[in-house]
Amino acid sequence: MNSWGKRADMLVHEEAPFNAEPTSAALAASYLTPTDTFYSRNHGPIPTLDPATWRLEVDGLVDRSLRLSLQELQDRFEEHEVTATVQCAGNRRAGLIAVRNIPGEDPWRDGATSTAVWAGVRLADVLAAAGVTQGDAAADEVHVAFQAPDVSELARPSQAYGGSIPLTKATRPEVLLAWSMNGEALRPVHGAPLRVVVPGWIGARSVKWLERVVVRRGPSENYFQSVAYRLLPPDADPDAAGPGDGLSLGPIALNSAILSPADDSTVSAGTVLVDGYAFAGDGRQVARVDVSSDAGETWVQADLGRDRGPWAWRLWHAEVHLAAGDAVLVARAWDGTAAAQPSEAAQLWNPKGYVNNACPRARVHAVHR
Amino acid sequence: MNSWGKRADMLVHEEAPFNAEPTSAALAASYLTPTDTFYSRNHGPIPTLDPATWRLEVDGLVDRSLRLSLQELQDRFEEHEVTATVQCAGNRRAGLIAVRNIPGEDPWRDGATSTAVWAGVRLADVLAAAGVTQGDAAADEVHVAFQAPDVSELARPSQAYGGSIPLTKATRPEVLLAWSMNGEALRPVHGAPLRVVVPGWIGARSVKWLERVVVRRGPSENYFQSVAYRLLPPDADPDAAGPGDGLSLGPIALNSAILSPADDSTVSAGTVLVDGYAFAGDGRQVARVDVSSDAGETWVQADLGRDRGPWAWRLWHAEVHLAAGDAVLVARAWDGTAAAQPSEAAQLWNPKGYVNNACPRARVHAVHR
Repeated sequence: MNSWGKRADMLVHEEAPFNAEPTSAALAASYLTPTDTFYSRNHGPIPTLDPATWRLEVDGLVDRSLRLSLQELQDRFEEHEVTATVQCAGNRRAGLIAVRNIPGEDPWRDGATSTAVWAGVRLADVLAAAGVTQGDAAADEVHVAFQAPDVSELARPSQAYGGSIPLTKATRPEVLLAWSMNGEALRPVHGAPLRVVVPGWIGARSVKWLERVVVRRGPSENYFQSVAYRLLPPDADPDAAGPGDGLSLGPIALNSAILSPADDSTVSAGTVLVDGYAFAGDGRQVARVDVSSDAGETWVQADLGRDRGPWAWRLWHAEVHLAAGDAVLVARAWDGTAAAQPSEAAQLWNPKGYVNNACPRARVHAVHR
Repeated sequence: MNSWGKRADMLVHEEAPFNAEPTSAALAASYLTPTDTFYSRNHGPIPTLDPATWRLEVDGLVDRSLRLSLQELQDRFEEHEVTATVQCAGNRRAGLIAVRNIPGEDPWRDGATSTAVWAGVRLADVLAAAGVTQGDAAADEVHVAFQAPDVSELARPSQAYGGSIPLTKATRPEVLLAWSMNGEALRPVHGAPLRVVVPGWIGARSVKWLERVVVRRGPSENYFQSVAYRLLPPDADPDAAGPGDGLSLGPIALNSAILSPADDSTVSAGTVLVDGYAFAGDGRQVARVDVSSDAGETWVQADLGRDRGPWAWRLWHAEVHLAAGDAVLVARAWDGTAAAQPSEAAQLWNPKGYVNNACPRARVHAVHR
């Protein structure tokens, strides 16, 4: 019996709160990540809410407060679908921990990211029903905050999970309040009955078990917005960090991973297939992925798989030719601005271990067999 | 007597076509770059157009073609100002040439970028007068092409300069048809009587001496859109590249430069002031700049200067403490997605030498005096 309906081979970082990622092989197996394979990142106990009594409140700087049942949401607003990759800001933290230890944070590998088809209503439509439109956003000053009931003992002080995004993003058509994932009703572990999906932004803003939407001036003061999920300078003491320190994370930075072959694995000399993903985040597109089998001296271009728009990853594969011996595979993605990933994780190290988007590497041992 | 009203100490790469950049010291001296200091990038002879007979044509996929004098443009549309940094895609190419030679392309240092206040009309307003609005843009399929009279012998075949941007960008409020720069009428060398200013995108799209705007399906077929200003893979032969090869450059990638002290210079041991610029491009914001005086082992945060919005650079300065001896200064900028610059130019080398946005370095020799 596995936790929360997840497959047996998940890498479980913690049982409580439940934090688990799929293996690279499981992630590479399909463009859409099956729900039993989708990563799960939590900060407190997973609540099981009764859809019959659950309501969504919408208030704050609105013309009309709303209180809606799931049925009312579904009846009153048009349903929309978005294929979106969700990615934790801590994805690939293991690569930063290899540079220098990061106490108290899970060593996520490449699997704190997954892709699904989400269905629900546009947050913009619900906000419009409350009398809030994009025209109300003076630059990024107005935020839309999300409140959930899962209380985290990791916060200082303990508090229910929350966060916010600027109204300029909240009113974009890709931002959903979703009740469905991959064609099925959302499961408790993924936020049933209703969750936010903020495509192109860090997973922390895609708040699960949504109960309340508050339109407000400035970002949420929730711990997970004001203290956590912020990029601190390398010499900062994370235990001493207070509200507003460091850079608030939001849009996702260009990233990629090598899913196969695994780091430190043995392969047959000759033609070797290299597989991975790349994701530009923030509505940008992955324009090219290069793969090197000589530690970055020379490169071949990978073939990019299915393109389902700017909110979802691209899977890629490339063939390289390895003589017998040791080799270092490297991948690098480019986005539509011709920006490439930083090459070295050491240059990105930060005290909470966020945003490791360094070019992924895999050492392989090629043998004749 | 200096070329085109530029100051005597410009670094002139070519007199014909005129290509010149300011020194680092000149660039660092002010947030807005004086017009006599602003870099100049040209592909053909600089035309001197008669404003009395000059007209702007707007046609293609429009409801109503327009033919407008400068006076009509000024009378009919509201004037707007934008503070915007213009940056050539070849800025900092010298750093790529140091990795491997790039024949036939000028070795721009850090000065193929400058910042001005531009005034003119919104391209969106002119397009709307022709019956074209953002709603006409099916994704990025509809482009707005710009045609100029300056014939370039560098194109294959020789042709007048041109290029295009997607309608989605063309209808944004920051995109101007400008007749004024830093409060004065545009000079011939900067595109008089009218030029395009596409903030956040490579300078190649800010077409000077604009004569015609054409709304069309797909990008311009002009040489400088379809063949040049494209990022080719490192192993491509640029002389063999045809239309559509490589990645079309558009939005600018996060970049920075150290303007002082100069590379390979001698400084006094003790406290050393380090100056530079950072620009996120594409409407992103520079969130932080770090400076290292030990080749990237440890970092201090730079102070960021004046913020005039997402279309303009940030100047920055930091104090570092140098013992007598050699040191390597490094800077790295972070944008609002917490993406940092790539660390090594070698990893970015490409056959035409575009988009060197590697972390800038300066070797200095600190002496007691």
